[in-house]
Amino acid sequence: MLENLKKAVYEANMELPAYHLVVFTWGNVSGIDRGSGLMVIKPSGVPYEELSPDKMVVMDLQGNRVEGDLNPSTDAETHLALYRAFPEVGGIVHTHSPYAVAWAQAGKDIPCLGTTQADYFYGDIPCTRSLTAEEVEEAYEKNTGEVILETFRERNLNPVYIPGVICRNHGPFAWGRNPREATYHAAVLEECAKMASYTVAVDPKVGEIPKHVLEKHFMRKHGPHAYYGQGK
Amino acid sequence: MLENLKKAVYEANMELPAYHLVVFTWGNVSGIDRGSGLMVIKPSGVPYEELSPDKMVVMDLQGNRVEGDLNPSTDAETHLALYRAFPEVGGIVHTHSPYAVAWAQAGKDIPCLGTTQADYFYGDIPCTRSLTAEEVEEAYEKNTGEVILETFRERNLNPVYIPGVICRNHGPFAWGRNPREATYHAAVLEECAKMASYTVAVDPKVGEIPKHVLEKHFMRKHGPHAYYGQGK
Amino acid sequence: MLENLKKAVYEANMELPAYHLVVFTWGNVSGIDRGSGLMVIKPSGVPYEELSPDKMVVMDLQGNRVEGDLNPSTDAETHLALYRAFPEVGGIVHTHSPYAVAWAQAGKDIPCLGTTQADYFYGDIPCTRSLTAEEVEEAYEKNTGEVILETFRERNLNPVYIPGVICRNHGPFAWGRNPREATYHAAVLEECAKMASYTVAVDPKVGEIPKHVLEKHFMRKHGPHAYYGQGK
Amino acid sequence: MLENLKKAVYEANMELPAYHLVVFTWGNVSGIDRGSGLMVIKPSGVPYEELSPDKMVVMDLQGNRVEGDLNPSTDAETHLALYRAFPEVGGIVHTHSPYAVAWAQAGKDIPCLGTTQADYFYGDIPCTRSLTAEEVEEAYEKNTGEVILETFRERNLNPVYIPGVICRNHGPFAWGRNPREATYHAAVLEECAKMASYTVAVDPKVGEIPKHVLEKHFMRKHGPHAYYGQGK
Repeated sequence: MLENLKKAVYEANMELPAYHLVVFTWGNVSGIDRGSGLMVIKPSGVPYEELSPDKMVVMDLQGNRVEGDLNPSTDAETHLALYRAFPEVGGIVHTHSPYAVAWAQAGKDIPCLGTTQADYFYGDIPCTRSLTAEEVEEAYEKNTGEVILETFRERNLNPVYIPGVICRNHGPFAWGRNPREATYHAAVLEECAKMASYTVAVDPKVGEIPKHVLEKHFMRKHGPHAYYGQGK
Repeated sequence: MLENLKKAVYEANMELPAYHLVVFTWGNVSGIDRGSGLMVIKPSGVPYEELSPDKMVVMDLQGNRVEGDLNPSTDAETHLALYRAFPEVGGIVHTHSPYAVAWAQAGKDIPCLGTTQADYFYGDIPCTRSLTAEEVEEAYEKNTGEVILETFRERNLNPVYIPGVICRNHGPFAWGRNPREATYHAAVLEECAKMASYTVAVDPKVGEIPKHVLEKHFMRKHGPHAYYGQGK
Repeated sequence: MLENLKKAVYEANMELPAYHLVVFTWGNVSGIDRGSGLMVIKPSGVPYEELSPDKMVVMDLQGNRVEGDLNPSTDAETHLALYRAFPEVGGIVHTHSPYAVAWAQAGKDIPCLGTTQADYFYGDIPCTRSLTAEEVEEAYEKNTGEVILETFRERNLNPVYIPGVICRNHGPFAWGRNPREATYHAAVLEECAKMASYTVAVDPKVGEIPKHVLEKHFMRKHGPHAYYGQGK
Repeated sequence: MLENLKKAVYEANMELPAYHLVVFTWGNVSGIDRGSGLMVIKPSGVPYEELSPDKMVVMDLQGNRVEGDLNPSTDAETHLALYRAFPEVGGIVHTHSPYAVAWAQAGKDIPCLGTTQADYFYGDIPCTRSLTAEEVEEAYEKNTGEVILETFRERNLNPVYIPGVICRNHGPFAWGRNPREATYHAAVLEECAKMASYTVAVDPKVGEIPKHVLEKHFMRKHGPHAYYGQGK
């Protein structure tokens, strides 16, 4: 079942080491088929060189395994929480890419300092709060997703305009319309985190990009009047 | 038309990922034929692995597309503004190379701290001011070029002696007598930005290279009495 | 003798340059056969490209060479001290991987700032004290091991839960159930050191991961109720 | 003439880009034949991919070109000054490797913070003073060498025990018994500079390695009682 989606999820997973976003098994990609409401995700702890499309695990939105012999990624419940809440999202990626992890470990939003980030993120990339001991105890992975949702709700952020987040003391999640766009956004997020790190090294008190430049760059690529690229 | 220039512009574009100056589509190279007054430039948003010489776009100095089916780089108007003002320039490069972006995001000139930079740049690599909301609104890409020209005019800089600039909150533009020299200068600019970043990490209060050493190094490669290399 | 272990130690040594953990001859891996009480270790100062399984040196736990024409790694006595004290350890790695060296040179524990480290280390990666002049004079390499043991004893650390250490002004040692797991932990240790360095660059006063998140992440991979991966 | 030395100098030059010590033409290696008193050096400004043994330039110790059509490296006079003063030296390398350049631009010695540096350098890697305007004017490249010699003389340093230096605002020179050992030391110098940079990022006020550990590490590899490696 869902052979095309399995292939797409497999290929997007394989892009993670190619983009230098993961070492060992430190990342996972999923995709969703909105028609059937089924998610395809990487199995847990399997090295990338041993992956193949048929090893992908199929789950329903309630977290039941529908197909596959392997355990799904331990982060599956986080992915599911995001799919349930963000209907526009078709693919999700989690990595431990090092610059994004640095900002997550520092507990700071990745500030929007320039047009590189403004081309993809309509502002800062938010950092969530830590989970409480109770939230960890009750359902760590699911509540990781819930805290992401809380962050977007409380700050009134649009997940289509801010296609990623960093989880406090942990690392980034990114998403897109499909698995491939999700990995693309994960790579952009890491580049922006890297550039922001390099920038604060030059000036620890640096200010953000002016609002009108942010607006211009994001909208020339994403708004109704976008004119970057070759059109649809 | 301009098949040789298209090939040169294509090849210079392909050097950008080879030099690790761009990821994805984050850069572009152009070249100009001064006889006909026509510019050849990378199409917008096309991945480097899909480029070929015949996909290059030909434009006149007023910004009209003369040949090619694809949209030119969104930055084409910036390139054109520089070609109109700097008659010695035959090729221009724009990238989001990360160390140069860091200095641009910090809003600081890349200081001339040593002989590596002095071999190519006769002093600091200037950082422009931000565009105003009005300038962004009126013609963002063209005014990006105008603000570069303002920077060179107000500081009385010679674009042959300072073959590059960083645009505030954005990233570097570099140029040369032809597209290949432009990418070469873009790579040198990134190396100098990297070395300057490493240096301020060791000593945040570092001073610049002494004037007489800057003078010596630049002039032994570029002045009328240059003696570096194998002569012409 | 011990042909399988020699092959395993050889292969684990060859992973060090592949993981970018060593340049030149700056590292070594050993393994132990607990049945016979014999250790197999890399010869001293031999470049990785000239290694082969039959060049590995066999020693007993008292430091006598049992087989092999080449001198063992100068660090052999450090490995032996750890094998004598840590019965669960089957493989040991020493490198000069640069981020771990930085923390060792700074004389600071690598703080547990996030889940990447918490997945493998149950807290900070400890930094030993310096050896005294007497300890250096008496038996430098053996006492390097003794000071590691002192660190684990005084802080009441479990070497199975903290599979690595950094030696003051020197660099990391890591271990595991076998040589391959030891190199894996050496690579994880370097990644954690890198992420910690990136994090203090963003926020020099960063705090550690909350206890309950550390507990959760370590135990979901390592405790009796571990559920990461595909089970045993 | 000197075909073996030309080949050795050629091969050592080709190691520079392989070790990531140079980009473009930013480095050069020379070797000397002490019998004839002739130096072989890279030609000036020739890209590494166009080098071959027969393009090497032969000069006498007074700076006269004895063989070769190409101009020698502009730094040839610096090499010659070192060969005249340091009779134990058989090969010399100059690069613009970025971490060493950072310390040179900061005008600081590379401090001996750990055993990695102590294994090769018997203490700090010294940074010279700047040349005066008069010294630059009179004979820039020769006086670059003279200022290196002044540094070693005034600090009473042994060039066999400290096989490298960084020139203020410029970059590193390293040397050895032959061209290959010189490039090896240039690579070690850059690794030490990198580790020192990483260390001051973690702790800007870090102290140096204890004297007795420095002594031990240098002497176990280099002294009359050296026991590292496989003996001679």
